[in-house]
Amino acid sequence: MRGSICLTTWRHYSRKFVPNLASSGTRGLSNSSSSPNPIPKPRVIFSGIQPTGIPHLGNFFGALLNWVKLQNDARPEDKLIFSIVGWHALTLPQDPQALRTARREILAVLLAIGLDPRRSVIFHQDANPDHTELAWILNCLTPVGKLRRMTTWKSKLATSRNANDESEVDESLLNAGLFTYPVLQAADILAYKATHVPVGEDQEQHLELSRDLADIFNRTFKARSSLFPLPQHIITPSRRILSMRDPSSKMSKSSPDQNSRILLTDSMSAVQKKIRSAVTDSITGVTYDPQNRPGAANLLTILAACTGEDASAVAARYADKGHGALKADVADAVEEVLKGPRAEFEKLRGQTEYLDGVARQGAERAREISGETLREVRARVGLV
Amino acid sequence: MRGSICLTTWRHYSRKFVPNLASSGTRGLSNSSSSPNPIPKPRVIFSGIQPTGIPHLGNFFGALLNWVKLQNDARPEDKLIFSIVGWHALTLPQDPQALRTARREILAVLLAIGLDPRRSVIFHQDANPDHTELAWILNCLTPVGKLRRMTTWKSKLATSRNANDESEVDESLLNAGLFTYPVLQAADILAYKATHVPVGEDQEQHLELSRDLADIFNRTFKARSSLFPLPQHIITPSRRILSMRDPSSKMSKSSPDQNSRILLTDSMSAVQKKIRSAVTDSITGVTYDPQNRPGAANLLTILAACTGEDASAVAARYADKGHGALKADVADAVEEVLKGPRAEFEKLRGQTEYLDGVARQGAERAREISGETLREVRARVGLV
Repeated sequence: MRGSICLTTWRHYSRKFVPNLASSGTRGLSNSSSSPNPIPKPRVIFSGIQPTGIPHLGNFFGALLNWVKLQNDARPEDKLIFSIVGWHALTLPQDPQALRTARREILAVLLAIGLDPRRSVIFHQDANPDHTELAWILNCLTPVGKLRRMTTWKSKLATSRNANDESEVDESLLNAGLFTYPVLQAADILAYKATHVPVGEDQEQHLELSRDLADIFNRTFKARSSLFPLPQHIITPSRRILSMRDPSSKMSKSSPDQNSRILLTDSMSAVQKKIRSAVTDSITGVTYDPQNRPGAANLLTILAACTGEDASAVAARYADKGHGALKADVADAVEEVLKGPRAEFEKLRGQTEYLDGVARQGAERAREISGETLREVRARVGLV
Repeated sequence: MRGSICLTTWRHYSRKFVPNLASSGTRGLSNSSSSPNPIPKPRVIFSGIQPTGIPHLGNFFGALLNWVKLQNDARPEDKLIFSIVGWHALTLPQDPQALRTARREILAVLLAIGLDPRRSVIFHQDANPDHTELAWILNCLTPVGKLRRMTTWKSKLATSRNANDESEVDESLLNAGLFTYPVLQAADILAYKATHVPVGEDQEQHLELSRDLADIFNRTFKARSSLFPLPQHIITPSRRILSMRDPSSKMSKSSPDQNSRILLTDSMSAVQKKIRSAVTDSITGVTYDPQNRPGAANLLTILAACTGEDASAVAARYADKGHGALKADVADAVEEVLKGPRAEFEKLRGQTEYLDGVARQGAERAREISGETLREVRARVGLV
């Protein structure tokens, strides 16, 4: 009961705070355009986030905000499935206690930013064994050579080891989980027969693999109809947020410098401090020049993301001003975006019972959908 | 009810028909010898068989007969867990209809040779998702380099493609299932905290990997005590049965020549025909000389396996006789061993409901045991 009052509040609230996203173009969502039938088919949208610490502004503007927007723009017949992918987190070493905490906190964050468990299926991947079962079956259809050509494991290894370059990491450091995680990712998507997946650029080759595996399965285990739709990616407005300390690299959860990232749950004073100390340059005036002035450009990108504007347009307003004035406005804008979710997060994080209930119900709904898929999969491959 | 009358019959019957195994030495079973405590700990014995067609004499004398013997010799406190490992079968291409049939028939075979579902847990691996979940977690602890050094995937690929030599197969033919199946095998074993695994020589490196992974897990996720015992192998009397048509290779399910193998369900006339046409040599008299006279040696091995004798001892009785006399006696001995299980198999194969019930109950008992292990695993890695 308390939960449901709470949820109403969130919904109002989430609609209010979500920044207006300029140019929220999606590809693949207009599946009516190429079809003679003008009624578009229901979409099944899937995405996942790893429980490896509180998300930062880069995660927020790069992915999470779009999840909320996708949810709020979805038609009633569309399914939305958002997963906290704990099994993927294990592909790099994790501290069990930190993982346990992050796993719970990230659920609170997802609710705090406006995901609504009455509308979206929000669940822990590790509470649904259909994912690993399907991953095994897909493993048996995945050439090892194809996995070796994936480049993400190298960059993941490089980041986790603070290597300067991918050439510093080699296969001797690679475990079979990190090597095959694109297959588990395909299983995450295909278990729900997802039709649309919002992905960042670095994940496009994985979605390509999911499509390949869906196609190989459909052709290998033919029946009256194809089992899996080929999932399409949704291009979401990509706001690439950089490190506050080193604007040559992305804002990252794994950087050792805490001041390099702004967490969604940072206090107002922490936000102000991190923005004040952001690395810029000594050139007078503000221009949007990502190549030569990445620090200033990053501040403009953040401000534009908060206000839903274009970064160049924002820059024009600061042409005659200094970095100090820009930083003050960025701090205000970020605080305006974060204060609602932060307050909601603080309220939710202690409501263990409520969070556990949301997780349990989410997992039940997820298993209902994937259970149907797996029954069909087992029948087709002959394991019944 | 019908089932339970039936089971009593089997038990009597299985005790009667099981050939006496000479030198059934086991290693690792005498865990009291090195311990100051004279009361040995309860054993958990695990083994698996792939549902890829009816087992042949090689499978029977190499593995299955030992399962029955292990069951009948077990102490009341020992656990016996025998799995039909459908997920492993998928590592090579399977016809879904054939897999479906084999999956059911092999359960009937296991019961027909004397495995007792009241004493042993007999179940389909693919009915217990704890295996793939644990496999994923172990994947994250398994260096890819270690898997690459496993040699079995090469020999499996070579056999499946009828290649003459392992050098004819390369990694371009390898799928991620076949590449990582030793990890799934480790999960099969560790999910039950198995202490003893009867394995053939070609699987020893896999059991070594299971031990390694148990040890890595115990060290990585420390608590008051180690979670996994390190599983030991049980050396079972190894009767290596060769092809009836080409005694330079093992009797194999995948050979295209049906006459190369004697199936446990072959009719008396089929058995006689296959043994009569077995390849031997043109030397007069019978001697046990596996190197130079592999065909005759194979017949002697089969006869010795049936009577529980030593092959050289059997050979002595045929020193003055011809291959014809030997073949006639081998055919009689094999028929004597097979006729009981064959009749039982024919009775059982149509009892779909009964078989499904045995499978369902077996899976429930398996999940009870592995469920407890997985709860501990999730708690240790932080996924709760």
